[in-house]
Amino acid sequence: MIEKMPSAEPTVSSKQVIKEINGITTQIVCTEFSNYIFIVLSQYGKMGTLISVRPDTQSNDINNPGLSTKVMLGKDEPMTHVCAKHLATAVTQESGNRPVLLGLSLKDSSIDSINQMKEIIHSCKVW
Amino acid sequence: MIEKMPSAEPTVSSKQVIKEINGITTQIVCTEFSNYIFIVLSQYGKMGTLISVRPDTQSNDINNPGLSTKVMLGKDEPMTHVCAKHLATAVTQESGNRPVLLGLSLKDSSIDSINQMKEIIHSCKVW
Repeated sequence: MIEKMPSAEPTVSSKQVIKEINGITTQIVCTEFSNYIFIVLSQYGKMGTLISVRPDTQSNDINNPGLSTKVMLGKDEPMTHVCAKHLATAVTQESGNRPVLLGLSLKDSSIDSINQMKEIIHSCKVW
Repeated sequence: MIEKMPSAEPTVSSKQVIKEINGITTQIVCTEFSNYIFIVLSQYGKMGTLISVRPDTQSNDINNPGLSTKVMLGKDEPMTHVCAKHLATAVTQESGNRPVLLGLSLKDSSIDSINQMKEIIHSCKVW
């Protein structure tokens, strides 16, 4: 009789890190679900704005699909979409075009901070 | 000079547990954000349906507000709303009327299973 291996269980894996980014304490939690990558970037201890980032199936270029962003909870501001796309592009590409659900509560959304966050997300790779 | 205590950092706390419920491996992850409690109940390793459960501010009875449920991602089925309300009622009451964001991917959503899940959520209390 073959015993069921624990690794065969349908469980989700998660990594988190707390770092200072330009002097601001930032918590980053990355969780892999089979149908979604869920990433929280929090500088206020809040869930913040929840944004869904999905590969755009309407795109004409199969090899380089665009991303469509949608605010699910919280304030719907143009900058939120820009930050979400910037943060999620590499993740969705590396995870076989899986959509990304992002929780963002940022004090500092400068390009420099966003770039540092991208690197930390990469170090918390769970996909 | 007073040193900043680490506990003052705006970080989120999370607990998770993996249990068999009526023979099905179930993963439960509870995360506390200052503005949301996020709970994932997964029997498929998926994020599944994402439901927002909020105290109903339109309620006439201040002491016993109703809950309004909204499916943010995934299939919008009547049973999803019933399960979500059942699972989130105690959490929102105990956490000072905070809204709950629920990720549900359930194979078995019988009353017996849901009641066992409620108990496990209580054991993973982060609020």
